[in-house]
Amino acid sequence: MGVSAIVGLGNKSDIDEDDLLTFFEQDDNTEVIAQHLEDLKDGRAFAEVARRVSKKKPVIVLKAGRTSAGAKAASSHTGALAGNDKIYEDVFNQSGVIRARSLRDLLEFARGIPVLPTPKGENVVIITGAGGSGVLLSDACVDNGLRLMSMPEDLDTAFRKFIPPFGAAGNPVDITGGEPPTTYKNTIKLGLADERIHALILGYWHTIITPPMVFAKVVLEAVEEMRAKGIAKPVVASLAGDVEVEEASDYLYRHGVPAYAYSTEIPVAVLGAKYKWARGAGILQ
Amino acid sequence: MGVSAIVGLGNKSDIDEDDLLTFFEQDDNTEVIAQHLEDLKDGRAFAEVARRVSKKKPVIVLKAGRTSAGAKAASSHTGALAGNDKIYEDVFNQSGVIRARSLRDLLEFARGIPVLPTPKGENVVIITGAGGSGVLLSDACVDNGLRLMSMPEDLDTAFRKFIPPFGAAGNPVDITGGEPPTTYKNTIKLGLADERIHALILGYWHTIITPPMVFAKVVLEAVEEMRAKGIAKPVVASLAGDVEVEEASDYLYRHGVPAYAYSTEIPVAVLGAKYKWARGAGILQ
Repeated sequence: MGVSAIVGLGNKSDIDEDDLLTFFEQDDNTEVIAQHLEDLKDGRAFAEVARRVSKKKPVIVLKAGRTSAGAKAASSHTGALAGNDKIYEDVFNQSGVIRARSLRDLLEFARGIPVLPTPKGENVVIITGAGGSGVLLSDACVDNGLRLMSMPEDLDTAFRKFIPPFGAAGNPVDITGGEPPTTYKNTIKLGLADERIHALILGYWHTIITPPMVFAKVVLEAVEEMRAKGIAKPVVASLAGDVEVEEASDYLYRHGVPAYAYSTEIPVAVLGAKYKWARGAGILQ
Repeated sequence: MGVSAIVGLGNKSDIDEDDLLTFFEQDDNTEVIAQHLEDLKDGRAFAEVARRVSKKKPVIVLKAGRTSAGAKAASSHTGALAGNDKIYEDVFNQSGVIRARSLRDLLEFARGIPVLPTPKGENVVIITGAGGSGVLLSDACVDNGLRLMSMPEDLDTAFRKFIPPFGAAGNPVDITGGEPPTTYKNTIKLGLADERIHALILGYWHTIITPPMVFAKVVLEAVEEMRAKGIAKPVVASLAGDVEVEEASDYLYRHGVPAYAYSTEIPVAVLGAKYKWARGAGILQ
């Protein structure tokens, strides 16, 4: 990912978080603002500025010193008064700030959010070649505030046309593990084409019939065919299998589909962060 | 990591989870048992067997279908009755099972637990070259049920001898970011040597004075000098910096110190899993 600037604030005797938000609000090289902080000296000023800035550019915050032990360490480190975490949670929620719970989440959100198109609604559909991944992806949706679309009957019937009888439509759409690339492609295209669906989560399972790089290419074909028709929806992917899934994940990511090997949680968390931003910015109600 | 066996249980019409626990309990090639499951058909039998087996070998479980959406997906997938998650939580807790919250945690716990020596007590100390990491590592300790040792005065004084006056002793021991390899080595050796300390969490910050591989080698020198004296304590590390920290993390891991680049949470979660096992097995009260 590109990095337009890195600023270390030291002890914030002069410039602090809201000053930087104001600066980067206007910086054309900056699409996303990610902050690691131990305290806010002026929570009110931060909330006011963040509320405005986050409507234009996603603001992601990793707040250290969430716990009593962490707060004590922060006090030794920078003299920060880490404060009551419930108050920070409220400030972040009210100002449209996306909260990262870990250093890795901070980095993954900052990388993934600008890659994903903004969703036009709350209906998320999982399409998976691995039923087991479908279950874990469903859990992750709940954990990350995403709503699995209740599948309309006509759409259910349409998906079923592409998948074997022992597969499961509904949501997740479980195409089952032995399917050729065309099944992935047909179901993904249907998911992108139908207006009632607003975002896709893909679960891939390594097979000889559809190897990782074949899956990756098929996904991008479907995404690009739809893009050519003016349809852009957020798509993320979880790939399970042998080490080849790492290459396939990188390839997908470089082409606009945030994809992760050996994880069902991270791709869903990244999609959840995009949704959180879109809701906070008032794009989604 | 080595894999002694992979078993897919299908629809469990005959063999189920507790049968496999009984089998792998006796298998000399198996040190850790990691299970992904959507339901337990006989929770009572599982609890009984798991309680026995987990005293000998760590049992890690990723339970899918934690949420209502996940449970619904599990029902479509395998017909599993994913059930009330609270009950599963109780069953796992009572039987000494370590619960993984994600696929990655399942894999990281299975890899890290057998590498770490079993701790002899609850006193955890953080030694960090980055104060900011120290705060995040402290938060992670609380999240993972680890207790930061309250630093006795004499030990505080002993640590202070090695660190600059603007560093912070207490716990985390913040040696500050500009220190040479000897400061890392002296403080780590002290942490390993003192009987009141039972586990170490290391925070590393990439500097020119102590580059990543130099840090890694210094850590291992300290660990191996102490091992030669019969002292073996669990040590995990979090490395922040440029890509060189990836190589340093791999090197540390291969030599018995689970280490992670760009993450403060995962190393602490792995140590927390080891503690959870040791408590469940009755080794730690």
